[in-house]
Amino acid sequence: MPKPGVNDPEGEAIRGGLQSLGYDGVERVRAGKHYRLHIGAPEANAARASAEEMANKLLANPVIQTYVIESVTEAEGDR
Amino acid sequence: MPKPGVNDPEGEAIRGGLQSLGYDGVERVRAGKHYRLHIGAPEANAARASAEEMANKLLANPVIQTYVIESVTEAEGDR
Repeated sequence: MPKPGVNDPEGEAIRGGLQSLGYDGVERVRAGKHYRLHIGAPEANAARASAEEMANKLLANPVIQTYVIESVTEAEGDR
Repeated sequence: MPKPGVNDPEGEAIRGGLQSLGYDGVERVRAGKHYRLHIGAPEANAARASAEEMANKLLANPVIQTYVIESVTEAEGDR
């Protein structure tokens, strides 16, 4: 998700599109990416640490974007 | 997020990139969009209904994508 104050042309375009289609209540839209990763790791904490590192180093640009690791769950049948 | 079975070239490219950078544990990546909307509405349920309609009709393609309305909260100072 773009940090506060960072321009977001995609979000702006979506806001304009929604408003022109009659959704007048839409005041602001911010657009970001959502990734779901399946990570092979010995336990959930190791997977989280790996996800944190990939997000910070590679998937997000920490200068202009924020990121959140939403949840780490074990896939069924992994153990 | 692409539905199960739907091709996801962006996710595949990210998986390949992460693996080639040494993140061998990454088995699968699915890529989707995340939108944060500020909606002017009389109450939260009306905002949720509006978001549901926009997601289904305009923001997602229900043939190949799934979507989730994560949460609806009142912004501070709205009342």
